[in-house]
Amino acid sequence: MSGTTVETQARSRVQLEIKELHGSLSDPVLDTMNFLNEVTHRYPDAISFAPGRPYDGFFDTEQVFTHVRRYLGHLAEQGSSERDIRTALYQYGPTAGLIRGIIADSLRADEDTDVPAESIVVTVGAQEAMLLVLRALFAGPDDVLLVSSPCYVGITGAARLLDVAVRPVEEREDGFNAADLEAAVLAEQASGRRPRAFYVVPDHSNPSGNTMGPQARKELLELAERYDFLVLEDSPYRLVSPGVPQPTLKSQDRARRVVHLGSYSKTVFPGARVGFVVADQCVLNAVGEEHLLADELAKIKSMVTVNTSSLSQAAVAGALLGARGRLSELNAEAAAYYGNAMRETLRQLDIQLPAARREALGVRWNKPTGGFFLTMRVPFRVDNTVLTTSAQDFGVIWTPMTHFCPGTGGHHGIRLSISYLTPDEIEEGTARLARFVEARSGLL
Amino acid sequence: MSGTTVETQARSRVQLEIKELHGSLSDPVLDTMNFLNEVTHRYPDAISFAPGRPYDGFFDTEQVFTHVRRYLGHLAEQGSSERDIRTALYQYGPTAGLIRGIIADSLRADEDTDVPAESIVVTVGAQEAMLLVLRALFAGPDDVLLVSSPCYVGITGAARLLDVAVRPVEEREDGFNAADLEAAVLAEQASGRRPRAFYVVPDHSNPSGNTMGPQARKELLELAERYDFLVLEDSPYRLVSPGVPQPTLKSQDRARRVVHLGSYSKTVFPGARVGFVVADQCVLNAVGEEHLLADELAKIKSMVTVNTSSLSQAAVAGALLGARGRLSELNAEAAAYYGNAMRETLRQLDIQLPAARREALGVRWNKPTGGFFLTMRVPFRVDNTVLTTSAQDFGVIWTPMTHFCPGTGGHHGIRLSISYLTPDEIEEGTARLARFVEARSGLL
Repeated sequence: MSGTTVETQARSRVQLEIKELHGSLSDPVLDTMNFLNEVTHRYPDAISFAPGRPYDGFFDTEQVFTHVRRYLGHLAEQGSSERDIRTALYQYGPTAGLIRGIIADSLRADEDTDVPAESIVVTVGAQEAMLLVLRALFAGPDDVLLVSSPCYVGITGAARLLDVAVRPVEEREDGFNAADLEAAVLAEQASGRRPRAFYVVPDHSNPSGNTMGPQARKELLELAERYDFLVLEDSPYRLVSPGVPQPTLKSQDRARRVVHLGSYSKTVFPGARVGFVVADQCVLNAVGEEHLLADELAKIKSMVTVNTSSLSQAAVAGALLGARGRLSELNAEAAAYYGNAMRETLRQLDIQLPAARREALGVRWNKPTGGFFLTMRVPFRVDNTVLTTSAQDFGVIWTPMTHFCPGTGGHHGIRLSISYLTPDEIEEGTARLARFVEARSGLL
Repeated sequence: MSGTTVETQARSRVQLEIKELHGSLSDPVLDTMNFLNEVTHRYPDAISFAPGRPYDGFFDTEQVFTHVRRYLGHLAEQGSSERDIRTALYQYGPTAGLIRGIIADSLRADEDTDVPAESIVVTVGAQEAMLLVLRALFAGPDDVLLVSSPCYVGITGAARLLDVAVRPVEEREDGFNAADLEAAVLAEQASGRRPRAFYVVPDHSNPSGNTMGPQARKELLELAERYDFLVLEDSPYRLVSPGVPQPTLKSQDRARRVVHLGSYSKTVFPGARVGFVVADQCVLNAVGEEHLLADELAKIKSMVTVNTSSLSQAAVAGALLGARGRLSELNAEAAAYYGNAMRETLRQLDIQLPAARREALGVRWNKPTGGFFLTMRVPFRVDNTVLTTSAQDFGVIWTPMTHFCPGTGGHHGIRLSISYLTPDEIEEGTARLARFVEARSGLL
């Protein structure tokens, strides 16, 4: 057998030409991710503010079995035969998903959102939902996707995959600004392009940590209606964050301008790879029949993943059923944990770099109400070399904000992710970070 | 709540323009699938030779729990801590997959294929693998995908999604013919296009049921090397089919011309949505570094689904571990069942339409060695109206072969899928089919 391998290798000098993902082989986002992995691996004792993953101390191996059995029990209670249950679990399932009704119930219970199950498509995480929506909406080279920048890399990745043009709309330090979005829309229109959608994470944004206030939400919905674009609302953190959340854009969406992207990665578990999209917009076909955008997304999904894992859907449905649809209750403990971590981080930062000192240095950070991310502005330029120095000499890792900036910009920003750290790590990590910032600022 | 819905609906007359999937809203493949679903729903007493799904009498609800626990036990045996196991099950996983080593072991045990785990990417079914491979390989409008036609709709669907040009290469009644493929390659080259890959299901093809012989396989591999294209080998049925399988194209691939698409939908269970791709081809990047095509596919996957459900991967890995990687042994009972069903179908057809009679009518069919599909040629033109008549007046449903023909053609063919039928249904179904064929031929 190993002889075959050697022989194959000896004859394998075929250079395959591949399609570049707008420069895939030197893709800045993937390069940063690889670089971060490499740095993390090379400096195992460094404290890392990089990974955006949920804290997994609340997970227990048995949970997933309990979830799946609860869903199967629910099917039996609803009158499914043993054979129906086998079919649901093992066979190809409906492309739009098995658990749309349970998701719709949860949106009513937890999000003040009343949409028919038919307007929901269950997806392989919110990532697949982004791909489906972009593929459906972006018809030609003049269509442009506006994104709130700095921006989650999943949406820009999906856009790159489909060759969709992206225009960043810079967030201000306090977050979304409607006037900036309007200016971007007008500029695109003046250039003969058509802004079809605006992507935003309104709650506890990744990477900035900002949350849109009620007035900004109202203005965004008005702009969408006035300028005829859709809002792609992605909000994976809202139900694992402390305090009373703002209403979703979707729950305020009187003009059906919002496509809501849902994720269970933070609220149930990432490994399930279950998300969803609410797409209750009307689409007219060639003969004037009306159907839902969700139907069109399901058609596209049949060519991407056919359907979402039944086993994963069963696990998520079981978790939802166990909490009577209330993810907020299911995640109350996690939300408090993340909230404490954020408060502790802000408190430690304030100790390490008191107001007068940080003003003198030209350092500042925002004060998110959530629990995953915060943004720090530093007076020096940040790049991979600087990150390596931080890891090697100061034992602390973070993510350069350039990673999240589809255009230029972000060169003086770093993202701190705190969801995965213990209080001790936060105390020690912020101290190391302060030493790094002091030293680096001293070089200016 | 319902007030909100009504209000939203009342204001929702926004007509969204969407990107057509080369005429998505009247897509012939999706239309046929919808039509088949509708016909099946409308005539519930009809016997259906349409669904290509596996027989699920061998499934048992407890199996999936056993599989997942076996994989978790395996991780513990390999030295994983309780925390490592929780991380594997619940957290984001590696984009290329958790279970690549187990898949590589299985390919060595069952398929005489020795590839490094690093050349494998675990995907959300073979469908996602097709999308990734097409996205990587097809760089521009002059690149063309050749497909053995009639053809599985998944590959043409993925091509449509990515706007990849497809040229069908007609199969003969006895299957693949190298001269036809060579002619198609030359014709494309003469038109200034570049055939980059040829897609084929070499074993028990969907829809034809044909299997390529050893000589045809040898000739295909030679053509791929001579004309510098890749072979996309998709073979979901080979290990659930009776008899000794032919070697895969990948196991004969001395020049690394074969990208092998793997599916566990027939061999483990469809609802898992786990497949894989073996892509051990070398790719050179801009600075002359060599890496695997698999690495490139993983990058693209990070923008499609991020990673494949850990829970589903655990279930598939547990099934593989339980059979020491030998899917052929795991599926011995199922393969015998499908083989019997095929033999019974051929025997009943021969009784219903004996040789002299079918010759007089101009009806014929192939005699597949597998167990899922066979092709029948009929003297009349087949379309949806004819299918409705068959369901309504004769109580039998099948799939028009046009459904599988990306170009024109297939108007006199029907696919019979028998994997899901009992012997009694096969006997009654073939009798009904014969009555339908007799009646319809009488109208000519």
